[in-house]
Amino acid sequence: MERVIKIGLLGLGTVGSGVLNILDINHDEVTSRAGARIEVKKILVRDPAKQRPVNVDPQLLTVDPWEIIRDPEIEVIIELIGGTEAAHSYVEEALKEKKYVITANKDLMALAGGELLALARGMGRNIYYEASVGGGIPLIRPLKHSLGANKITRLMGIINGTTNYILTRMSLDKADFAVALRGAQEKGFAEQDPANDLEGRDAAYKLCILAGLAFNCRVGFDSVYVEGIDGLNLRDIFYAGELGFTVKLLAIGEELESGIALRVHPTLISSSHPLAGVLDENNALYLVGNAVGEVMFYGPGAGSMPTGSSVVADLIEVIRNINHQVENGVMETSFVEKRVVPMEQLSSAFYLRLQALDQPGVFAGLANAFADEAVSLDRVIQKRSAEGKAEIVLITHVVAEKNFNHALEKIKALPAIKKINSLFRVIEG
Amino acid sequence: MERVIKIGLLGLGTVGSGVLNILDINHDEVTSRAGARIEVKKILVRDPAKQRPVNVDPQLLTVDPWEIIRDPEIEVIIELIGGTEAAHSYVEEALKEKKYVITANKDLMALAGGELLALARGMGRNIYYEASVGGGIPLIRPLKHSLGANKITRLMGIINGTTNYILTRMSLDKADFAVALRGAQEKGFAEQDPANDLEGRDAAYKLCILAGLAFNCRVGFDSVYVEGIDGLNLRDIFYAGELGFTVKLLAIGEELESGIALRVHPTLISSSHPLAGVLDENNALYLVGNAVGEVMFYGPGAGSMPTGSSVVADLIEVIRNINHQVENGVMETSFVEKRVVPMEQLSSAFYLRLQALDQPGVFAGLANAFADEAVSLDRVIQKRSAEGKAEIVLITHVVAEKNFNHALEKIKALPAIKKINSLFRVIEG
Repeated sequence: MERVIKIGLLGLGTVGSGVLNILDINHDEVTSRAGARIEVKKILVRDPAKQRPVNVDPQLLTVDPWEIIRDPEIEVIIELIGGTEAAHSYVEEALKEKKYVITANKDLMALAGGELLALARGMGRNIYYEASVGGGIPLIRPLKHSLGANKITRLMGIINGTTNYILTRMSLDKADFAVALRGAQEKGFAEQDPANDLEGRDAAYKLCILAGLAFNCRVGFDSVYVEGIDGLNLRDIFYAGELGFTVKLLAIGEELESGIALRVHPTLISSSHPLAGVLDENNALYLVGNAVGEVMFYGPGAGSMPTGSSVVADLIEVIRNINHQVENGVMETSFVEKRVVPMEQLSSAFYLRLQALDQPGVFAGLANAFADEAVSLDRVIQKRSAEGKAEIVLITHVVAEKNFNHALEKIKALPAIKKINSLFRVIEG
Repeated sequence: MERVIKIGLLGLGTVGSGVLNILDINHDEVTSRAGARIEVKKILVRDPAKQRPVNVDPQLLTVDPWEIIRDPEIEVIIELIGGTEAAHSYVEEALKEKKYVITANKDLMALAGGELLALARGMGRNIYYEASVGGGIPLIRPLKHSLGANKITRLMGIINGTTNYILTRMSLDKADFAVALRGAQEKGFAEQDPANDLEGRDAAYKLCILAGLAFNCRVGFDSVYVEGIDGLNLRDIFYAGELGFTVKLLAIGEELESGIALRVHPTLISSSHPLAGVLDENNALYLVGNAVGEVMFYGPGAGSMPTGSSVVADLIEVIRNINHQVENGVMETSFVEKRVVPMEQLSSAFYLRLQALDQPGVFAGLANAFADEAVSLDRVIQKRSAEGKAEIVLITHVVAEKNFNHALEKIKALPAIKKINSLFRVIEG
């Protein structure tokens, strides 16, 4: 007799439609790989009358979440409503009802993942969240399983599609920030209020999830240093290119001797680095493990079908675990407390663009300010610009953030320095 | 009481040393993720007296495989001797003894994988072979699990590090084939007898394994069309670059309406394709799934520690399965028979370089030969060369292989065409 697994969906937006679509068009593959037939028994929606891009039996729709969560026949709850308040209470209750939970909710996993995973463990269940980071790219499972023989020392991710699209269009089309943003909004890659993406918070949430897995620790959102790309100047992308670099918004996690360091900021990376070739709305995660060396995972970081692909992969794994009576799945993550190293204790190379008076002694002043703080310069470009001013672009060697900041204060105080235009961190490796 | 899992290693060469190294330096991580302590009980070697790069208790070494395979305490056998004859009988016997088997042996899995996996299934055990393709890059597990919600329609891999190193050096250093090969040999990226790599057979074995998983079918080595890069001319890399292409040895698997198509050949791919940026000895697998879209996995395709990383990841999974009493692991692959579409029934775009007399009417002759077979041209470069000859480089649109071959026969018969220098397939997408 064929085994049937009944599932409930909370939410039928972009990702929910993708999930139903995949369960339909890949029905045979999914059934065979899961080893059971999947029956979507109920779906939570806000408005059952709304027109939807997928065919769905109206009888499955409900506006009452508890009708789904408390249904004893439903073994798996897929949470796709997003946000944290309602989602948190639904997931919590579903676990208490001994359901397996699958979620694409990065905010929820970043803010309450530790607590919810512990609850799941206590109930002999588990939460699966491959879709919460990197859309369709397999990231969570490779981190947990395939790279399990490694100490991960560093991860760098392009994990926000909106900003990567904007940076790519600026770089390839020489579009201004505002033009590129408008293009992203027109294509549906940026929301009408894009602040969460542009200011780096979306990437920071995802970094919490990835770093927690990579370094086996709980990572609070407050531990992440965050700088976005809002208002980035096209000149900097141009100069970076001239110097052999590409500007990307990177989410970076490192395990140092003194603790873990977590940051999201626009970064100049060498144009030959694999991450530099990640274009448009695509995402990628680059990892360094002490056994494997450097690996990278690349693909679509969002979208209905890609994110649905990750949700359904989780569903297949849940059902295999149910079939094999592995009650709580594999409890692979043992969280430990780790010290977070604050940004000012890290070291970076820096890119700096500034306006100076075009007069003798300016360079000497700059050079002395850097030398006093033991900041050494790697590359310098000076361009003449209008009205007796020179535009100077320089890249430092790796220095302590603290020293660089001290040098910067001194430079700002020099009479010949008119303006610090921009400042980015540089990663050579 | 702490659970101890005893394992036996067959072979202590490059990969075996990496495995012991990882079990040593990442002891705590591996133990915690596996949920058991791992004890290497015995190791098969040819010469116990040989000096080795890892510290190993000489008492563990044996020259008798059966002492390991028949040891009732040993639950997991890791086969790292390579080759097919001895390895086949050891793995077969290990499965019959109800051991779990981990192998890095691509030849064995390509030639006898189906049969051995069936035997494993019958014994309630399983074979793990993440290390058999792509060294340290997670490929097998993502294909089986993370992309399980997809129909894979196409895969393209750079899965031979030797040839990718040679092509990269030719392209970046403008080194001749022979020089680049010698460089690869000096760096240890090519063997003294590199025929297996250069002629594409190594990649074809790996393609059998990947395509079998991607398309859920058994793929025989004979089903793969194989062309290598032996003696590739630097001029073609140069012209390809001028036209916006990069030359890579690609292993390509496709599921078409008429069946599956499998081929390994030097290929011109667009220089903006993610695979074009895979440099030196690195490997990558690019996949298209009907839900996820395009994803790529990138990393080190060989080496002691990277390949060891994959072996130990498999070991962690085996031990988790033992701990959870999932006897045979997850039986995720249901092989079905699929028709193999022969090369001459496929379609490709072609790159052609030829020498013609520098005289009127040559182009008309070429154009007519192509037009007669409905082959249309996409791009043409003509260079004057010495002694009244012209060098012509052209790229066709996608055409049936059969039509192209007919056109080529006609072109060869033209009196003004002196020589067909080279011929490659082109992938635009």
